[in-house]
Amino acid sequence: MDVETVEQSDLETSDAGAEVLAVTGRARRASRKLAGANRAWKDKGLRAIAKALVGAQAQILLANVKDVDAGRENGTSAALLDRLTLTPERIAGLAGALENLATLPDPVGNVVRGQTLPNGLRMRQINVPMGVVAAIYEARPNVTVDIAGLAIKSGNAVILRGGTAAAHTNETLLGIVRDALESVGLPADAVQSVDRYGREGANLLMKARGQVDVLIPRGGRELIQTVVANAAVPVIETGEGNVHIFIDASAKEEMSVNILLNSKTQRPSVCNTVETLLVHKDATVTSAVLKALADAGVRLHVDERVALLVPAGTVSFPATEEDWATEYMDLDLAVKMVDSLPEAIKHIRTWSTGHTEAILTNDLANAEMFIAEVDSAAVIVNASTRFTDGGELGLGAEVGISTQKLHARGPMGLKELTTTKWIVQGEGQVRG
Amino acid sequence: MDVETVEQSDLETSDAGAEVLAVTGRARRASRKLAGANRAWKDKGLRAIAKALVGAQAQILLANVKDVDAGRENGTSAALLDRLTLTPERIAGLAGALENLATLPDPVGNVVRGQTLPNGLRMRQINVPMGVVAAIYEARPNVTVDIAGLAIKSGNAVILRGGTAAAHTNETLLGIVRDALESVGLPADAVQSVDRYGREGANLLMKARGQVDVLIPRGGRELIQTVVANAAVPVIETGEGNVHIFIDASAKEEMSVNILLNSKTQRPSVCNTVETLLVHKDATVTSAVLKALADAGVRLHVDERVALLVPAGTVSFPATEEDWATEYMDLDLAVKMVDSLPEAIKHIRTWSTGHTEAILTNDLANAEMFIAEVDSAAVIVNASTRFTDGGELGLGAEVGISTQKLHARGPMGLKELTTTKWIVQGEGQVRG
Repeated sequence: MDVETVEQSDLETSDAGAEVLAVTGRARRASRKLAGANRAWKDKGLRAIAKALVGAQAQILLANVKDVDAGRENGTSAALLDRLTLTPERIAGLAGALENLATLPDPVGNVVRGQTLPNGLRMRQINVPMGVVAAIYEARPNVTVDIAGLAIKSGNAVILRGGTAAAHTNETLLGIVRDALESVGLPADAVQSVDRYGREGANLLMKARGQVDVLIPRGGRELIQTVVANAAVPVIETGEGNVHIFIDASAKEEMSVNILLNSKTQRPSVCNTVETLLVHKDATVTSAVLKALADAGVRLHVDERVALLVPAGTVSFPATEEDWATEYMDLDLAVKMVDSLPEAIKHIRTWSTGHTEAILTNDLANAEMFIAEVDSAAVIVNASTRFTDGGELGLGAEVGISTQKLHARGPMGLKELTTTKWIVQGEGQVRG
Repeated sequence: MDVETVEQSDLETSDAGAEVLAVTGRARRASRKLAGANRAWKDKGLRAIAKALVGAQAQILLANVKDVDAGRENGTSAALLDRLTLTPERIAGLAGALENLATLPDPVGNVVRGQTLPNGLRMRQINVPMGVVAAIYEARPNVTVDIAGLAIKSGNAVILRGGTAAAHTNETLLGIVRDALESVGLPADAVQSVDRYGREGANLLMKARGQVDVLIPRGGRELIQTVVANAAVPVIETGEGNVHIFIDASAKEEMSVNILLNSKTQRPSVCNTVETLLVHKDATVTSAVLKALADAGVRLHVDERVALLVPAGTVSFPATEEDWATEYMDLDLAVKMVDSLPEAIKHIRTWSTGHTEAILTNDLANAEMFIAEVDSAAVIVNASTRFTDGGELGLGAEVGISTQKLHARGPMGLKELTTTKWIVQGEGQVRG
């Protein structure tokens, strides 16, 4: 079934539609039970899942081997196979993340604002669970456990649609998670999947307005754009990062070299890695930075002026407009020389995806101008772009990094999986 | 042009599309200027608009008469004609609201959270303007000034699409607002309209992903549902209120009578007015409440058990499922008897639009259960439902009342027209 042909009405008329509607109905009922569960109970559930995952290690690895073998036969790339593969260490890591979640404060019940009004009404606005969260993601089985844990901690039921390539692993993980929830008296239906309905399941979730309170796509550009373009339910867009660093004329050499190396090479495949370097024409550190990057194996895609500064013996590539637009997610970096800070800001406005941009400078006015004028989720002065991360910024756990402006922007923690409720208490007040 | 046939690509290919794209481009540039304007400057702009409106009163009334006359010829209802009509008092009211906005704190720059991280990085998350806000609304010219003022105060540019029936009035108001902005050095393009492109203009705005940061529909159910179903840009759903009050067995008579009269009759045409009354079978106050409502001219739509309690001589109507679903916005009230609080909660879950629900009770456990289990934007204990209002709850100004869970829920103030930006400052920190 084509994405365009699925409508809200299909939820009632098609067979899969009726079944997905049944899934969302069970999720809604489970979400009500979970919303009433206190922190101790939810944490008990998280710890039970962690223990069950470690206990079922052999079963998980067996299922995972099926998926990995099938992937290898289908010619899946080494990078994707790596993301698909679970090991005893990775399973222990998943369990550890759940244990960590159990140590975090409960986002539910937090008072956002409150006051006693002049007429004596007591008003407070508190965080409450969203209700039913849905996640559509690719063949990364760790996301299955990760999102389930975050949803439970924030009091939400979750409906999962994972990549078909991880079907065996996800099915096994789902069974373990559901059994563990039941073992502590929490509803198993707090975590469900629509994987058995294939792509139609994903499409139906996107149209389930009123049944799904928020949909979070996690994966590559194509997945996210498909979801954003087709969803009728509210979506939080995550992830795309065409990240820039601007080296100002006053930037210091050692700091610039360290930050560029860290921002580009520490983990090139993630969204907060730098993709374009802008250098001021009067910056004295450019040659040293380019040399350090080339020595670290970075392929430089440079404009004509930067080409003159590339160290002798280093192969570089002429940059085109495509380079300014590309999120390489690899050891590639586009480099462009600009005449001024405003020119750098203009380039960023044209090409950035609004994720993270950094300035390296010793000029206070320039730092302030960059902070004020760059309209991205995170703006960094004199530090690595790799810090745009929920864990690094103290959120404790990360749901994803939002590149939209509505509801959540930048790293999302547990709080971003909640909404609010206004509670007004009086003793007979009426409006005059 | 049909809603369904407008796609993102039409923004580039159709003539109106190219012009709307030019409008959004000018809005983006104006938004950058406005984002950099401090509070004093923005407040100066608001006061200049207020003064200009009062000064141009004759011109506004002349334009308004054209719209009202045309409406009368077209057979527009008296209620809609009333909403369309401006008077010297109403113009003074609009000016007064702008003066009031100028006295409110600036939502921009507010620090949401901040800390110094273990590695010495200083992190803060601050409120910043959304950028470009769009509003689609019906023939209420007051919304033109109202939304323009809220957008300016929160540092956003706004693109308006008002109802065709108010075209002359809106065009005049727009000219006055733009001239006033220019008179204080703020960009006139911070407030623009796409009214000259008719319905196509509205459709193109809904598809302008990346150009419009948030779209707010203001009006009746049909308008809001059309926008929600067709928009590709983020939308904040506002307004629909199928509001319930539950009278518990322990409710006191005087309080119940006062709250029902206020909730139903003080202003029946607005979204926070009560539409369904649920009465506990053991409540002793039901007859008195029904009598007071009937005496106040309320038409009662009652189930069989309630019919027995309707005062002699009062005409009532048998309630059907349609009554449970209806937002009358008039002097009508559906009344149903329930056997228990859980049955009342179940009814609310089935029929509520998630706007506001209230319980009248003297039982603490029941009040707590109602607060915990009713999943609406506002939950009220022993007070009128008319208090779900930004002004009443201390927000200073109200953008609308959100009935969705993402970004904003319940009354929205200036803060809800902002997003956040993470600012991270270091001295060379890299990630380990």
